[in-house]
Amino acid sequence: MEVKEHTISLLVHNKPDVLARIAGTFSGRGYNIESISANVTLDPKITKINIVTVGNSATIVQIEKQLKKLVDVIDAFHVKSGSTIQREMIIVRVEVAKGDQGGIIKAIEEFGCRVLKKGSGYFILELTGDKSEVDQALTYLGTLGMKNMSRSGRVVL
Amino acid sequence: MEVKEHTISLLVHNKPDVLARIAGTFSGRGYNIESISANVTLDPKITKINIVTVGNSATIVQIEKQLKKLVDVIDAFHVKSGSTIQREMIIVRVEVAKGDQGGIIKAIEEFGCRVLKKGSGYFILELTGDKSEVDQALTYLGTLGMKNMSRSGRVVL
Repeated sequence: MEVKEHTISLLVHNKPDVLARIAGTFSGRGYNIESISANVTLDPKITKINIVTVGNSATIVQIEKQLKKLVDVIDAFHVKSGSTIQREMIIVRVEVAKGDQGGIIKAIEEFGCRVLKKGSGYFILELTGDKSEVDQALTYLGTLGMKNMSRSGRVVL
Repeated sequence: MEVKEHTISLLVHNKPDVLARIAGTFSGRGYNIESISANVTLDPKITKINIVTVGNSATIVQIEKQLKKLVDVIDAFHVKSGSTIQREMIIVRVEVAKGDQGGIIKAIEEFGCRVLKKGSGYFILELTGDKSEVDQALTYLGTLGMKNMSRSGRVVL
């Protein structure tokens, strides 16, 4: 069966134990959480959690069913691509020699990076996009002298 | 002792069990994870996790010590504001009556929102900023007819 990336979204009550139970549901089947993003919704008592994992579709359906049964989980659903917006954010530090800023300009113009901070010999850049856009930008930034990178989980609407 | 918001960053081996153990360390002390953001670093075998929690500083120091001792945790540290960049991303759906787009223009010009999609009677907007900028924008967007909102955890560099 085809192994591929899946996004699972959950709405949960904002309680201390719920994340440990959810993470345990994945690890109990040997499934790794590739990325996670969670924060409160418009109702501060309810948190939305987005988890990206890699596996076969049949197991994902079983995980989804198990998640729905957990205490304090209001809903869990497998996010289908196409009908939703799924985006990630990265912040990177790129070191550049003085006078050699053409690469940074390309990062801004071609990849949509935004400059958060500029110091002596370095730039801090931010980018948002879907997974493919972020991956392509990271490949390019890797050629520039990227020294540090922090990547969000996935935000799904 | 003063109860306030704290950000904890961890570098961990990208293994199935590690998130459940980390979440359990917080919930074992009754500490809620307000938001979480985790994704791979430049080394795909290593994941960076950023957790925001609310509590007193003495307990946070104890949690930090416990986290450092967990299997597959490479490092855990309490992020001090000032020396780091800490940003969040939101995606919102705002419904507007035809011809009434002044509010959207203000969201773009004053709060820095970006239009991801525009449909009949609605806009999908994205915003990145620090917690205070995002909170202020959300307060404003709430007056516009915001119907749905998804918020990332915190990205720390």
